[in-house]
Amino acid sequence: MITMDTIDIEDKLSQFDEYWSPKVVGELNGQLVKLAKLKGEFVWHHHKEEDELFMVIKGELTIRLKDQTIQLKKGQFFIIPKGVEHLPIAKEECHVMLFEPKSVLNTGNVINEKTVNKLDKL
Amino acid sequence: MITMDTIDIEDKLSQFDEYWSPKVVGELNGQLVKLAKLKGEFVWHHHKEEDELFMVIKGELTIRLKDQTIQLKKGQFFIIPKGVEHLPIAKEECHVMLFEPKSVLNTGNVINEKTVNKLDKL
Repeated sequence: MITMDTIDIEDKLSQFDEYWSPKVVGELNGQLVKLAKLKGEFVWHHHKEEDELFMVIKGELTIRLKDQTIQLKKGQFFIIPKGVEHLPIAKEECHVMLFEPKSVLNTGNVINEKTVNKLDKL
Repeated sequence: MITMDTIDIEDKLSQFDEYWSPKVVGELNGQLVKLAKLKGEFVWHHHKEEDELFMVIKGELTIRLKDQTIQLKKGQFFIIPKGVEHLPIAKEECHVMLFEPKSVLNTGNVINEKTVNKLDKL
């Protein structure tokens, strides 16, 4: 459902502490806007049908691809095309905004202890 | 086409000066990420089929709706649901990121001198 609220990114980020647990902060055209706090190494995965945008709000994010390594800092974003294997790594705590379809599962084709099946909305 | 480039928002904003002329800086899942510089008053319009996200990167943006007025500052966003009449106003220069389907025309249901039919990509 589309809510007509002003969303303050920093305010939303202040409402949770967990790492690797994206929170939904907006929805439009079948896509979700999510915020997440990352620290450490995630898991290699891909999303079969969905492109995924990572935008760094705070800190730095490394995204390893099979053939290159992307380094993102605050104010930068990168779009991972569907089907592309990627491994997000945050050496220090990093805050990101994600844009992706509602259908995206955080661990993509992998189901493990990092999989979050039901996302909180803030 | 999805390009696998790191996009630096400030760098992209430094590449143009025109107001009310959104530049495409990313594409995913049939949606576009755009950057725009706004100053002054736009035109009342709506998008029949598309929800539209405005995120403020610099400055402040007023969005008038028929029954309320939204004030957005840096780090805040607002989603205008499809069909909702809106009028963006920037008293001073304001920089925004937009997230919306490829099909969106900037002036929505209105065609006038502010209509941009073909968007530049940066």
